[in-house]
Amino acid sequence: MTAAKPNPYAAKPGDYLSNVNNFQLIDSTLREGEQFANAFFDTEKKIEIAKALDDFGVDYIELTSPVASEQSKKDCEAICKLGLKAKILTHIRCHMDDARVAVETGVDGVDVVIGTSKFLRQYSHGKDMNYIAKSAVEVIEFVKSKGIEIRFSSEDSFRSDLVDLLNIYKTVDKIGVNRVGIADTVGCANPRQVYELIRTLKSVVSCDIECHFHNDTGCAIANAYTALEGGARLIDVSVLGIGERNGITPLGGLMARMIVAAPEYVKSKYKLHKIRDIENLVADAVEVNIPFNNPITGFCAFTHKAGIHAKAILANPSTYEILDPQDFGMKRYIHFANRLTGWNAIKARVDQLNLNLTDSQVKEITAKIKKLGDVRALNIDDVDSIIKNFHAEVTTPQLQSARKNKQEDSDVPALNSVPAAKRAKPTV
Amino acid sequence: MTAAKPNPYAAKPGDYLSNVNNFQLIDSTLREGEQFANAFFDTEKKIEIAKALDDFGVDYIELTSPVASEQSKKDCEAICKLGLKAKILTHIRCHMDDARVAVETGVDGVDVVIGTSKFLRQYSHGKDMNYIAKSAVEVIEFVKSKGIEIRFSSEDSFRSDLVDLLNIYKTVDKIGVNRVGIADTVGCANPRQVYELIRTLKSVVSCDIECHFHNDTGCAIANAYTALEGGARLIDVSVLGIGERNGITPLGGLMARMIVAAPEYVKSKYKLHKIRDIENLVADAVEVNIPFNNPITGFCAFTHKAGIHAKAILANPSTYEILDPQDFGMKRYIHFANRLTGWNAIKARVDQLNLNLTDSQVKEITAKIKKLGDVRALNIDDVDSIIKNFHAEVTTPQLQSARKNKQEDSDVPALNSVPAAKRAKPTV
Repeated sequence: MTAAKPNPYAAKPGDYLSNVNNFQLIDSTLREGEQFANAFFDTEKKIEIAKALDDFGVDYIELTSPVASEQSKKDCEAICKLGLKAKILTHIRCHMDDARVAVETGVDGVDVVIGTSKFLRQYSHGKDMNYIAKSAVEVIEFVKSKGIEIRFSSEDSFRSDLVDLLNIYKTVDKIGVNRVGIADTVGCANPRQVYELIRTLKSVVSCDIECHFHNDTGCAIANAYTALEGGARLIDVSVLGIGERNGITPLGGLMARMIVAAPEYVKSKYKLHKIRDIENLVADAVEVNIPFNNPITGFCAFTHKAGIHAKAILANPSTYEILDPQDFGMKRYIHFANRLTGWNAIKARVDQLNLNLTDSQVKEITAKIKKLGDVRALNIDDVDSIIKNFHAEVTTPQLQSARKNKQEDSDVPALNSVPAAKRAKPTV
Repeated sequence: MTAAKPNPYAAKPGDYLSNVNNFQLIDSTLREGEQFANAFFDTEKKIEIAKALDDFGVDYIELTSPVASEQSKKDCEAICKLGLKAKILTHIRCHMDDARVAVETGVDGVDVVIGTSKFLRQYSHGKDMNYIAKSAVEVIEFVKSKGIEIRFSSEDSFRSDLVDLLNIYKTVDKIGVNRVGIADTVGCANPRQVYELIRTLKSVVSCDIECHFHNDTGCAIANAYTALEGGARLIDVSVLGIGERNGITPLGGLMARMIVAAPEYVKSKYKLHKIRDIENLVADAVEVNIPFNNPITGFCAFTHKAGIHAKAILANPSTYEILDPQDFGMKRYIHFANRLTGWNAIKARVDQLNLNLTDSQVKEITAKIKKLGDVRALNIDDVDSIIKNFHAEVTTPQLQSARKNKQEDSDVPALNSVPAAKRAKPTV
């Protein structure tokens, strides 16, 4: 209710609302992620993923409904018995049949969902808002009676009627749910729309707000961030964003966003250097490659190429980096073997090769490299050969010495190299 | 200046400002994209890409600076001679040496950029704001004197001093630039911050505003959209978003976002069914795979899996789709060969196989499929075998008929199939 004060000189609502420094993660790799086209997790793999997520530090782990299949129920029970720090949730339809099974699995909480858009009311369950409210109250009171957490969420919230939404959320908040959920089930929402809806909802309910954003139009990370600004507290993520269609807010991508806004909070709470391992674990399990342009772990996320960028990065990495690769156990690369290179990048390579050349000599070498780079793609050996040949010419006319340099090639650490294109693990 | 009226009851600035229905695209695959780690485009490939972009309908094509290398200059001249509908731009440092070369290439316009953040002023060019303004005026007047378009952009705008920014933009706007540019060079900006800056800038300059967003923290599409809401007119994109580090706003992803907001404008202006071909062209050229979760063209972007989703999609695709795959020449898939499947999806497959079974029979089959799906990953043949065996048992006890069905397998179009994981083109 803090946002409703009419005094225009008071602090802005955003000053009270933001949870950017106080958010929680609900990882849904083992629920939403199971709905990814390629996903089939056996029990062992589910346990491995759950343990990795727990180690990383997610606050909640959400599992597929125990009524989805017999094995889904057994897996849910098995994961509840692992004794993880993360709370275990399962995700069910707003129906007593599902709720009765869910509460017996040993979960710490139940996430209930029902479609509230006109599309889903007409073509999915066919129920009206009164029916939805009645079912919701019944299921919520039942789950609460078992002493575990309960979240009530609408589905396709951004295409639902605002008054319908606020009515049902107000009702379930009064009964005492732990969280209400806003879900952009089709991935249509945009950030300012998200901010408005969350801020409005925040003035209606006193419980926490959880958000779930699909990525069909590429806004799932930005929407999650903006939801936190508007007062949401919990964000649904999955590893690499896997889920229905092209998925939801990815765990790694959201960490990239959040560390910029709340570095101390994020670094103290989550083991960021584990992101790469967790992504590889899940990518292998569902047989996909890490996208080349993935935040943080994409093969070129910390590769700097244009001469003007390389120059400044060498002087101070903050010039062209908002993320520090070290925070994620990653490394920075300066790509100098190309026609866009500049003499500062080449000078850094000359220093790395432990050679001694003047600036004007380095500029001369750079011109040679750019000339070859105009003809074809270069690799590091090409550049090193040009540098070493030049060095041999200007310093020691004896061929002996030039040869000696060549033999030392293997001793030079390729710290500044760009990795080969991570294109493919050839599998069927 | 429309936004500056003091009447609090007047229409909101946003009502005047939005260019969501009136935006333009500057494709920078051949400039920013050349700065992608893997990119080496020879002349032929550059021309092929430029022609494809022109055919798609981008408004501008931006090319690498002609001073980057000798071949870059020749390629720039060659592309200017193609007679494309798109206007050709080249991108240079704010320096007369660069400008003199650029205006001789035959381009329709020059994009000038200079670092304005304290980081870049200290570690890149080392100049103060007075020097920047002086250089800018000189370069702009020179380019204008040649009768071609000129854009002035700051670099790392979101970490630059606001007053410095507004001062320089006001200055260059008065001289008469065609556009000013805001660049999130390090990918740090968030949507509400973008909206505020663009809206403020809009009240200071009368020329168009162009935006350039890097994707380090996953917000490049959302920031572009929000910039248009705030009054920006032009967005820099590249195919698949390729660029420095993990790149910028991707062409395809932005189209997914924009078609939701401005369907008529987008469909009338851009050949959306060409996105897949253009992405494949560029992906092949830079040796990357299309990310599995790419908007529109990711292999699962239109794949529906959970039973509850499949049911509703079969009744009305709008239930779980904000994008119509047909708009992009793509197809929808219902993934029914898994343990999360439901009887509506299986019934659709039964119909597709031209078999006749009651609902309760289909439910019985669905239970069998879910049971097998609990044990292992399924493929379409597994499901079809279960369906056909069941059908054979309940309708024609003769083995003859069951065998006949099997022979007809190859005639059944696998319309509802999910494609195999598009994991890898095995290359070096």
